[in-house]
Amino acid sequence: MGIAIIFGANGGIGQEFVKQALERYAVVFACSRPKKATPDSSKLPDIKTLDNGLVKVELNPHDEEQLQRFAQHVREQYGHVDLIINAIGILHDSKELQPEKKIEDFNLDNFIEMMTVNASATALIAKHFIKLLKQSDAQPAILASLSARVGSISDNRLGGWYSYRASKAALNQIIKTLSIEVARRNKNTAVIALHPGTTDTKLSKPFQQNVKPGKLFSPEYSVRKLFEIIDNLFLEDNGKFFAWDGSTIEW
Amino acid sequence: MGIAIIFGANGGIGQEFVKQALERYAVVFACSRPKKATPDSSKLPDIKTLDNGLVKVELNPHDEEQLQRFAQHVREQYGHVDLIINAIGILHDSKELQPEKKIEDFNLDNFIEMMTVNASATALIAKHFIKLLKQSDAQPAILASLSARVGSISDNRLGGWYSYRASKAALNQIIKTLSIEVARRNKNTAVIALHPGTTDTKLSKPFQQNVKPGKLFSPEYSVRKLFEIIDNLFLEDNGKFFAWDGSTIEW
Repeated sequence: MGIAIIFGANGGIGQEFVKQALERYAVVFACSRPKKATPDSSKLPDIKTLDNGLVKVELNPHDEEQLQRFAQHVREQYGHVDLIINAIGILHDSKELQPEKKIEDFNLDNFIEMMTVNASATALIAKHFIKLLKQSDAQPAILASLSARVGSISDNRLGGWYSYRASKAALNQIIKTLSIEVARRNKNTAVIALHPGTTDTKLSKPFQQNVKPGKLFSPEYSVRKLFEIIDNLFLEDNGKFFAWDGSTIEW
Repeated sequence: MGIAIIFGANGGIGQEFVKQALERYAVVFACSRPKKATPDSSKLPDIKTLDNGLVKVELNPHDEEQLQRFAQHVREQYGHVDLIINAIGILHDSKELQPEKKIEDFNLDNFIEMMTVNASATALIAKHFIKLLKQSDAQPAILASLSARVGSISDNRLGGWYSYRASKAALNQIIKTLSIEVARRNKNTAVIALHPGTTDTKLSKPFQQNVKPGKLFSPEYSVRKLFEIIDNLFLEDNGKFFAWDGSTIEW
């Protein structure tokens, strides 16, 4: 039975991943951060099973106790997971976190915030789920993380956005390193980075005026293109960085 | 008059950079972290001028007030800087910070520590010194940061060392982004990443048993090779990642 887990399921792209995953997988865990901070006494992730295969999970992905308990739940219920998508990401917030236009805008707190959200979450998820990544059919089990073309060092031509670019480069390195570890430890498992293109979500909203006509995608379109990659992935694709159109991006 | 600043001047490679810089530059600022934490009331960096061109500076490179005051001192005294070397880096400490062998060893606190020390320091230094980077002769002014081949995503074949690798990939992205900004804002200035090879210092000590014979360099040799690159750098080298032997490393 096909089992999928989507982290960042409340984001523009994450929501759409949940929707399209439900057309493909028997069970889809839609994980998002609790709206209210959980009191320390209750460290359990909140897991609600709905009747169409959707399971809503509220957890903080940087709280390892919650991640570990959620992994234990998946193991006890299903014994494995076929697909993990990490769609967690931040580029700006309603306050002071904004991508830098020049080096003078660099701020250590914002850098750490971007690193924590954009880069470390995939490592923490992999830490607790690597042993569960097993395919239930011929296709590889897949851990895919939303990266971004601006995280490519080779492809960096415009500059700016120091912390965001660095956090996605760090994420790409984590993905590449994970791909080597799963090749050694897991059977038939691939870890990949995905660039969704510029998608009409809250994340890209303040920057959409610079997008060329026809290049601002709906979440439905981006995720449909990303699922074309995921649905047709081969084991040899382990460790690659794919754009929405199926082309690979240099690191 | 040639002015150089070495950050991380108390490390194995940093010390040697100070020594060899004194053969080339009229004034060499050797910056290291204070041995004792500075009390909050005294936020000044401690600057001691010695008589051979050496200036010893004690400052915390993550304390922006200290960095800014030090930059102001350099501006008032000399008006510019020809060479900045950032040799600050951490791979392990005497306690729990160790490079990961497998994803289960990944720890958020250690990841943040490595990112802060290995990646953010170059951004903070550049933030406060970008306007001072001006050559005093025909050669470009240079900001060079010690990176590491294991930070290359393309070149990652062995895996492991998640946080260190990610921190150096983040550093490489910061360097590439800076190189684009200085090309626009500064005249005749280059920002580069340097891989010193495996050098016989405290940093590499626990891992030296895996180094092939003849491939463990003395700090004197590594820095001599790196100065061959620095001494002969062209403006077209801006944004490149050089190994000790002058070859470039893919990102």
